[in-house]
Amino acid sequence: MESTESRVTMDEITALAKRRGFIFPSSEIYGGIGGFFDYGPLGSILKRNVKNAWWREMVELRDDVVGFDSSIVMHPSTWIASGHVAAFHDKLVDCRNCKHRFRADHLASLEKCPDCGMSGTLTEPRNFNLMMQTQVGAMEDAESVAYLRPETAQGIFVNFKNIYQSARKKPPFGIAQIGKSFRNEITPRYFTFRQREFEQAELEYFVPDDGNDLRAYEAWVVARKKWYSDYGVREDRLRFYELTADERPHYARAGTDVEYLFPWGWGELESIAHRGTYDLDAHMKLSGKDLTFFDEASKSKYTPILIESSAGMDRTTLTMLIDAYASESLVDEQGKESKRVVLRFHPKIAPVQVGVFPLARNKPELVERARSIEAALRPAFRTQYDEGNVGQLYRRQDEIGTPACIMVDFEGMADGTVTVRDRDSMTQERIGVDALAGFLASRLG
Amino acid sequence: MESTESRVTMDEITALAKRRGFIFPSSEIYGGIGGFFDYGPLGSILKRNVKNAWWREMVELRDDVVGFDSSIVMHPSTWIASGHVAAFHDKLVDCRNCKHRFRADHLASLEKCPDCGMSGTLTEPRNFNLMMQTQVGAMEDAESVAYLRPETAQGIFVNFKNIYQSARKKPPFGIAQIGKSFRNEITPRYFTFRQREFEQAELEYFVPDDGNDLRAYEAWVVARKKWYSDYGVREDRLRFYELTADERPHYARAGTDVEYLFPWGWGELESIAHRGTYDLDAHMKLSGKDLTFFDEASKSKYTPILIESSAGMDRTTLTMLIDAYASESLVDEQGKESKRVVLRFHPKIAPVQVGVFPLARNKPELVERARSIEAALRPAFRTQYDEGNVGQLYRRQDEIGTPACIMVDFEGMADGTVTVRDRDSMTQERIGVDALAGFLASRLG
Repeated sequence: MESTESRVTMDEITALAKRRGFIFPSSEIYGGIGGFFDYGPLGSILKRNVKNAWWREMVELRDDVVGFDSSIVMHPSTWIASGHVAAFHDKLVDCRNCKHRFRADHLASLEKCPDCGMSGTLTEPRNFNLMMQTQVGAMEDAESVAYLRPETAQGIFVNFKNIYQSARKKPPFGIAQIGKSFRNEITPRYFTFRQREFEQAELEYFVPDDGNDLRAYEAWVVARKKWYSDYGVREDRLRFYELTADERPHYARAGTDVEYLFPWGWGELESIAHRGTYDLDAHMKLSGKDLTFFDEASKSKYTPILIESSAGMDRTTLTMLIDAYASESLVDEQGKESKRVVLRFHPKIAPVQVGVFPLARNKPELVERARSIEAALRPAFRTQYDEGNVGQLYRRQDEIGTPACIMVDFEGMADGTVTVRDRDSMTQERIGVDALAGFLASRLG
Repeated sequence: MESTESRVTMDEITALAKRRGFIFPSSEIYGGIGGFFDYGPLGSILKRNVKNAWWREMVELRDDVVGFDSSIVMHPSTWIASGHVAAFHDKLVDCRNCKHRFRADHLASLEKCPDCGMSGTLTEPRNFNLMMQTQVGAMEDAESVAYLRPETAQGIFVNFKNIYQSARKKPPFGIAQIGKSFRNEITPRYFTFRQREFEQAELEYFVPDDGNDLRAYEAWVVARKKWYSDYGVREDRLRFYELTADERPHYARAGTDVEYLFPWGWGELESIAHRGTYDLDAHMKLSGKDLTFFDEASKSKYTPILIESSAGMDRTTLTMLIDAYASESLVDEQGKESKRVVLRFHPKIAPVQVGVFPLARNKPELVERARSIEAALRPAFRTQYDEGNVGQLYRRQDEIGTPACIMVDFEGMADGTVTVRDRDSMTQERIGVDALAGFLASRLG
């Protein structure tokens, strides 16, 4: 069987995501709310698997990284120290005629309104802070203003001393966190790529100032490359763009943007950065508290240098969905053409790993055997029982990216076997029921 | 060895939580922010384990529950339909003299201010909505007001049709979600028990109106009892309080509060409720959208009845911490007394499962063997390497609740064994290194 593959469009991905329960627009029955999305039965598992894969590599399998989980609402001084209150802005322009509002950097010129066409009606650009505000406590005054964090990292910085003291860690060591952040984007777009509410996975790795800091940064670039590669992201759609000195903040000695080639172009998934001592310094200055590290061995204190990896979990999940997608034209040996849509998820992140079906839904002995196989496999794999037309069953599992499908048929009832169909090759093997768990573990592990 | 045990106070738990890295006050270097907390290296893993234990039982091991993950900010109409905009209030009273503010239900009388002591200065109680507000989009007007969800459940209700259609599920089936919620509590208190930002695990189980709804409710009460029992919560500190008709909302046919006996008294961990068709009805009415279920078999549509289990993950994590705590006076065979603090976590939720130490830190061959054993066990268990004074090593692991500690000594270097110390009995067994993984799996599984 030959196959050719065409690239997916965002419309196709959005439609598939809704139809199969990956991602829905938030609060759709009320007309939706721009920049917010809900993860459906398959999408919530897919995203969970992506986050667990990150956590597994970054925390569980390492002995130099500890976990952390800070609150979304923090003391407002946090965002003064970090610079977000003063400088986390987009420049906005209003049209005095049609009252529409635009991001200044999205306008070709400030002469003429792109919506109503009037010239001379646009205001000068003014700053619009992207942090979402709320109020905490019973009083409604300036003192009660708080922010929804625009990034999780600051929760780690302000806790640096609490963490290294309680965990008895010394640099080099890292602190990892996965959690929601919020940015009041003027123009949320590209499905879940630019949302107003999103989830980040951030690693803050602190190293001594002993001349090995750039080496530590480079080791993290390598580690992150390996992560994307391990989960099967296509190499020709992924790039690690090294920032030039001009593109980096003044305090950063090095930086790399990890980008994926989305249907609309390259988009950032992650940034890896050498941030010097900037973040800890800023919090020490504003709080007056000591966040240096005291080295027992040398009886001296120093401010550790920070290497950061900050990845978007919604963007990575979207990448997995788009990267897995293939719409294939198949030609069989008789020259007959057919089409299928298949998501080639890595088995570790596929929301369903094993589909189990009876050959016929009206044969109780087949149904019973299929159900009991599904139940037996469930503790070890993400399984789904289904029944119906054989061709449709396979097509449905292909479209949700299930790597292995088990069919219970009459031949297997007689000799204690089932067929196992491989999603990618579409070939089937007959496997003894006793050997099934081991066979699947070797394929899906 | 005999031991007696004394009950922990909240001050002791709070101090231990900070010292060992379970829980810190949020943004502590800036003086903190009331009602918000951060989970440290051990606490973030403990809470993660609690959430995973819930997800495992409620979603992964069942074939009638699907996962979901909706956004924190939803369309504001959601909270009109749910009744939160109109009725999610505390009654507040102000003192016109000292300007202090009180919850009316916390005051003994409205005659005299409890803070400044003046009489006749308190205002009439007025409504204060507990939802935290924010603004979405570039405009700052009434149209842009949105809320941080005060519960995750509504995200499931408004998506009910999207979910059952895409997942091809029919009642009875459930939808499960874990996520952050926010309530602007006037008086956050009891450590992480009553926070302003907290995490919920909610299961919404939809059943047909075929007369089996109360049976489904009862089955969930049994399932939830089993969950707490499986993870070792002491039976004499847990109660399932059945609400009377007067205590239930008018639409609810049954309800049970799951309560734990905290150091300050009984506190609610979870509510299990038969909510009738109230929630879907409310969203159908306001949105004008059809959220009924169409049954293909009978070609008829109906509104499913809802059984809800809503559990607080921070409260459950705090329960695990408090319930595990024991401060023991030990008397050995010579009559010598000593003390130890031990957290008797269930092995599945213990943040560290296996501690590994060399008998002496200055013996490179012991250190190397201990490190290599720790690294070999790390993919299968939550491990921690440590070194130092033997008594201190055990004490430290007891205090963070590590069920098994492995000591590498000279005898073991010679014959390929290690000792494994059991946290609870404090007895040691000598185990061959080759048999270690199997031995630990049988103890910690």
